[in-house]
Amino acid sequence: MVAQNLRTPGPTPLPPAVREALSRDMVNHRGPEFAAILRECIDGLKWAYQVNEHDVVILTTSGTGGLESLVANTLSPGQRLLVASIGNFGERMAQIARVFGAEVTQIDVQPGQALEPQLLADALRANPRIETVFVTHNETSTGVLNPLQALAEAVHQVRADALILVDGISSVSSVPVEPEAWGCDVVVAGSQKGWMTPPGLAFVSISPRAWERQARSTMPKFYFDWRLARRSAESGETPWTPAISLFYALQAGLRLMREEGLERIFARHERLARYTREGLADLDVRLLADPRFASPTVTTAWLPDGVNGKALLTALDERDGVVLAGGQGNLSGKIFRVGHMGWVDQAELDAVLRALQVELNSIRAPTARSFSPVSSPEAR
Amino acid sequence: MVAQNLRTPGPTPLPPAVREALSRDMVNHRGPEFAAILRECIDGLKWAYQVNEHDVVILTTSGTGGLESLVANTLSPGQRLLVASIGNFGERMAQIARVFGAEVTQIDVQPGQALEPQLLADALRANPRIETVFVTHNETSTGVLNPLQALAEAVHQVRADALILVDGISSVSSVPVEPEAWGCDVVVAGSQKGWMTPPGLAFVSISPRAWERQARSTMPKFYFDWRLARRSAESGETPWTPAISLFYALQAGLRLMREEGLERIFARHERLARYTREGLADLDVRLLADPRFASPTVTTAWLPDGVNGKALLTALDERDGVVLAGGQGNLSGKIFRVGHMGWVDQAELDAVLRALQVELNSIRAPTARSFSPVSSPEAR
Repeated sequence: MVAQNLRTPGPTPLPPAVREALSRDMVNHRGPEFAAILRECIDGLKWAYQVNEHDVVILTTSGTGGLESLVANTLSPGQRLLVASIGNFGERMAQIARVFGAEVTQIDVQPGQALEPQLLADALRANPRIETVFVTHNETSTGVLNPLQALAEAVHQVRADALILVDGISSVSSVPVEPEAWGCDVVVAGSQKGWMTPPGLAFVSISPRAWERQARSTMPKFYFDWRLARRSAESGETPWTPAISLFYALQAGLRLMREEGLERIFARHERLARYTREGLADLDVRLLADPRFASPTVTTAWLPDGVNGKALLTALDERDGVVLAGGQGNLSGKIFRVGHMGWVDQAELDAVLRALQVELNSIRAPTARSFSPVSSPEAR
Repeated sequence: MVAQNLRTPGPTPLPPAVREALSRDMVNHRGPEFAAILRECIDGLKWAYQVNEHDVVILTTSGTGGLESLVANTLSPGQRLLVASIGNFGERMAQIARVFGAEVTQIDVQPGQALEPQLLADALRANPRIETVFVTHNETSTGVLNPLQALAEAVHQVRADALILVDGISSVSSVPVEPEAWGCDVVVAGSQKGWMTPPGLAFVSISPRAWERQARSTMPKFYFDWRLARRSAESGETPWTPAISLFYALQAGLRLMREEGLERIFARHERLARYTREGLADLDVRLLADPRFASPTVTTAWLPDGVNGKALLTALDERDGVVLAGGQGNLSGKIFRVGHMGWVDQAELDAVLRALQVELNSIRAPTARSFSPVSSPEAR
């Protein structure tokens, strides 16, 4: 298995088939080999996104560039965007929209909490000018999974023609997301999450309504122009030179995903998340996320009193080969995060919990309870 | 060696050490391993760019995103940009600048010709409002290397405080470029050219004057904000999740470049370009670029009368394993292009010339002269 137990919420470890794919030599990005790869990738993405009518485009950029593409393609300067932020990445979207000259109305939620559909409905009623709503599906900074379907319903009930933009960066591929069935017009995802591939590609699903909006949007766009991406894809190309190696990796990752099947992938993530939460609770570590909305892809926990986050993460890395992530923004130095998405199973999480037990014991009073692996998490 | 003889002007073939690097598993992009790689990459880029005072930032994007970053970071809406276009990529820069609301004054030059310094000086004199000049160093679409040092001198003589932006995408790494010595404020390059690495990263060198301009620029910028990239690099990070695999590749590619040495790399490109031109002339193929300014990294030639470009390229690919590029824009269907940058030596070009001879003979009259490999191109 992997030498280092990389348990950050992206990047995630690469399976051998993906590493093999990455090592392939270059091909002409305007030739038939690349066209076949691009088509297979787009087909695979549409399968994972569970869409037929919506298009999916692939951009050579990281997730933040994917978010920027939402602003550039759906908004016009001065247009109002409702950003329902439940953490750092919602905050980032608001920042991008402001930089590009949109008027942002922001709802903020206590870290660890999900967004109440009622709150979203109220905000829309209070702001008749809002035609566009941005919602984070899975907030990577707090480990919270928003009830996306219910949120989309709430928007539709108050304002049927509002466009719904979704940050699905750490959900699509690992958690059920159904943009068509739920009426989510635009959903962005990132290659370094459950896809088991390196960072560097962003994926965007786009509804027919979003295309209409795109045609009217006057925000400046060139590199991130979805229309150019869709047009080029029709002839098996990308408008600009693509990160070819990352497409090789995506092709391999999607094949592995199809072998496992979406249902089984979703169930595995759900199960491993529960296993992680229970294991942490057994270590007397307090979880950050509201248990009703705890994320299937990343678990967040408060640092116990008197534990220095940086020292803990360094000890885990250097002594145990376990790499976790710290907090972001206001949560920096207060929490730690365990990623469990993509190519991961129980063994890696056992190793995380064991290492955490050892390191926390060496810091805390010796009363800390000992860790016992859960033999059958499904039975709990 | 490579199974397929990929001779497009980017992407270019990958040496084994780079392919090996690409296959490495992920690391945390906020950890010490990535910090060390990022530092080594930036040091290596500064060595290849031959800069000390200028900064170099690395963006996860393809070359076109790198060009967009020039517009976003140095201009403000309504500000005038002089674009000296000698081909498709100059045209692209003008297009991006217009999309973002800059006022573009464009000089166009006949395809295959370089830009005369006098022409640039005259355009500046005729437009007192121009404070920013964009010049392509090596135009990939026509195979022309502009006399960059002389062009920069011409700009400085007419307007000492004008900012000079350079598209060095297919020159830096393969051709001498000295941004500091020549007074080129911003020079963008792309990973899929002479660096021997896949597409997906853009590099930008930035002068102190360009940083002053950046601080005043009001063009909307977030993902491409150079300031954020420089600030994060100080602590060994990138502001957004980087394409980690491509940084592994860049580290490996730069090590190979340092082993060979800049002088030898430049001489090899110069020699192979001459060898390619002479070989094509021996096949009675008419070259596009003015011989005084023929590019060291890509050679362009007119399709002989009666030769269908698409059919020729397909035959070369399918029968001979040789992959060349066609023309872009107005030159589509009229020319073909041979890339000779990065990991390439005479053997691959001999194979190109041999295959071209066979395919052209099978199309043209049997009077076509036969190909004889040049044994000692240095002696010519």
